[in-house]
Amino acid sequence: MNNKTDMINNISTVLTKVREKTPLVHAITNYVTINDCANILLAFGASPAMAEAYDETYDFAKISSAIYINIGTLTKEQEQSMIMAVLSAKNNNIPVVLDPVACGAIKRKIDFIQKIFEIGKVDIIKGNLGEIKYLAGYEAKIRGVDSIDDGSNSIEACVSLAKKYNCIVAATGAQDIITDGKRTAIIENGTSLLTLVTGAGCMVGALTAATAAVEEDKFLATVASILSMNLAGEHAAKTAKAPGSFKVKLIDEIYLLKENDFEKEGKIQWI
Amino acid sequence: MNNKTDMINNISTVLTKVREKTPLVHAITNYVTINDCANILLAFGASPAMAEAYDETYDFAKISSAIYINIGTLTKEQEQSMIMAVLSAKNNNIPVVLDPVACGAIKRKIDFIQKIFEIGKVDIIKGNLGEIKYLAGYEAKIRGVDSIDDGSNSIEACVSLAKKYNCIVAATGAQDIITDGKRTAIIENGTSLLTLVTGAGCMVGALTAATAAVEEDKFLATVASILSMNLAGEHAAKTAKAPGSFKVKLIDEIYLLKENDFEKEGKIQWI
Amino acid sequence: MNNKTDMINNISTVLTKVREKTPLVHAITNYVTINDCANILLAFGASPAMAEAYDETYDFAKISSAIYINIGTLTKEQEQSMIMAVLSAKNNNIPVVLDPVACGAIKRKIDFIQKIFEIGKVDIIKGNLGEIKYLAGYEAKIRGVDSIDDGSNSIEACVSLAKKYNCIVAATGAQDIITDGKRTAIIENGTSLLTLVTGAGCMVGALTAATAAVEEDKFLATVASILSMNLAGEHAAKTAKAPGSFKVKLIDEIYLLKENDFEKEGKIQWI
Repeated sequence: MNNKTDMINNISTVLTKVREKTPLVHAITNYVTINDCANILLAFGASPAMAEAYDETYDFAKISSAIYINIGTLTKEQEQSMIMAVLSAKNNNIPVVLDPVACGAIKRKIDFIQKIFEIGKVDIIKGNLGEIKYLAGYEAKIRGVDSIDDGSNSIEACVSLAKKYNCIVAATGAQDIITDGKRTAIIENGTSLLTLVTGAGCMVGALTAATAAVEEDKFLATVASILSMNLAGEHAAKTAKAPGSFKVKLIDEIYLLKENDFEKEGKIQWI
Repeated sequence: MNNKTDMINNISTVLTKVREKTPLVHAITNYVTINDCANILLAFGASPAMAEAYDETYDFAKISSAIYINIGTLTKEQEQSMIMAVLSAKNNNIPVVLDPVACGAIKRKIDFIQKIFEIGKVDIIKGNLGEIKYLAGYEAKIRGVDSIDDGSNSIEACVSLAKKYNCIVAATGAQDIITDGKRTAIIENGTSLLTLVTGAGCMVGALTAATAAVEEDKFLATVASILSMNLAGEHAAKTAKAPGSFKVKLIDEIYLLKENDFEKEGKIQWI
Repeated sequence: MNNKTDMINNISTVLTKVREKTPLVHAITNYVTINDCANILLAFGASPAMAEAYDETYDFAKISSAIYINIGTLTKEQEQSMIMAVLSAKNNNIPVVLDPVACGAIKRKIDFIQKIFEIGKVDIIKGNLGEIKYLAGYEAKIRGVDSIDDGSNSIEACVSLAKKYNCIVAATGAQDIITDGKRTAIIENGTSLLTLVTGAGCMVGALTAATAAVEEDKFLATVASILSMNLAGEHAAKTAKAPGSFKVKLIDEIYLLKENDFEKEGKIQWI
């Protein structure tokens, strides 16, 4: 386990690197929150691109800094385009973040995720707690796209899934759990207003692709993106008390995030 | 006809029930306003899910509390997925709200609506006045996705359509008309700013699925959703004077709606 | 070259005509910013419609005042629907605005643009500087969907492309260049916040379809739409300092734009 102060300093550095390098994030994502993902990436300092025709994504992935795959509204054409993107990512060593939206509620999505792991590669799985527990083979309480899980065996499930696929696993919720199978971080920041805005999960997934693009240590990259979202949420909740205004402020606060906010405000438990 | 005070009290109860039960609304809807529909459902207290692949929707409909079908940008894949969803709704007795966007301007949409009624079932048709009059076989003035109808024979057309399909019919406009063929309500609330925001109609359709999920009397459920939108619009228009700010406030005000706002502010004529 | 004061007065007239005629803009556009395009068209005074199934667009184009084609997320179905729309535009003499998003980064898009010119017709090409230079056959610096071009030979490239296709060409950037091959306008207005919001380019493309619908001189129509966006951006930037709030204000300020803002604030160089 790294030293705690080192870790926090490294998280600040990830934000700096995103802003300096403006990584090109290739997102193939659901149509519900595709606009929010693009806007938050821009506000964070990254450069979003949403190429998704199946004869575009193999080549486009090559010129991307990282790929974000979100299966929320998985059309047949998106299914093909995601396969081509993750295959290209494997062949060209591009980081991939997978957001397994609703994988516990719709069987086809589990089949598709298995295909992604067989054909391509995934560096980071970022889901809500229900999705992660389901993927890990634990009993999970899920309702549509939402997790209503009580949180039992959460850390165990995350660690188990990380070891199974040899990747980073992040489960978001009231607490966020991030693990690479050995190191685990639990983030206590955030606000319940994030649950009243569609796409908070998608947006943090997109941000994770941006941090994974610039940071070699993908565990650290994932802690940085999730903590960024939580702190921006806390800042937004200071003035916005209802979900419409909150979403607008959330984008603002991602843009206004300061490097030393992480050290001052981050509530991280390192295990 | 129920007593007026009873009706208003029952409308308040619908909002309470949505917030308590957080109904899972399965929306297959156009890509223009899909994000707005998800956000307003969350703000209202419901849980939105936008599954739309054709091999997902039959099963997903089963676990949903209500289904919202909006044919605004009807891709071929959506067409199939909607058919599967309404068929599942019929077989599993799930309430369905149909939004016949642009049905008067594009012939394919009328053909599709007929297929929906043949294969599946619809509990509530919610359209703008031009769409409803066109569906009812009345002369209607339509321009693209907008109604420019003068409103002649409006109530007659709504009642006729409700009887034809044995369902609730709601026609939105400067006045909103809701009828089950016997009972009719005319709502005078609202603000012209609602016409300057894309998706106001879609959003009220999505809210109607939420109320239909929790209220057995679908006529009452529809009055409740449309009145909620109109009151939230009036509240938002108090501080927002231009459409960008208004849309943000509209989501806020749906969230902030109070049960007794209906009685205090509702301008409903019961026929 | 027309007289400068005449030109500015004519630009004001374009805005007046949009508000009086509420042109029906048929947009087939990317899913990232489709909602923003609809909202800004409404705020500007136009009537947006996003029909995009391939068996709808030929007939729908006929009843439209202008067509906006944006190839950002070009699905196979959109490809077919765009072909049908531009063919209908040619046969029915409807103005077409083409937004060649990412044409320099993805080969398929160049092939498709050539097909559009072969089968249909285009009145105005509106892209970022990198896209326009690439289309014109000049060396262009492009990164994903963004131009990072230094601007050398920009005017020459625009003029050359305008002559090649006998249409208006607009290249947006820190400076905006609009030309019909003979007359050229360079607009110096705007704000860097426009680059932090996804879809600023798409929105100005959609507005250009609205102005092209009401103004016979398509060069003037394009200057009017681009100047409108830039002035609205400047107005929004007076109070909004971060991208979330800025986007909301941008829609407000398009709605609040006054006819005499053009003369008072427009910084146009006529060549």
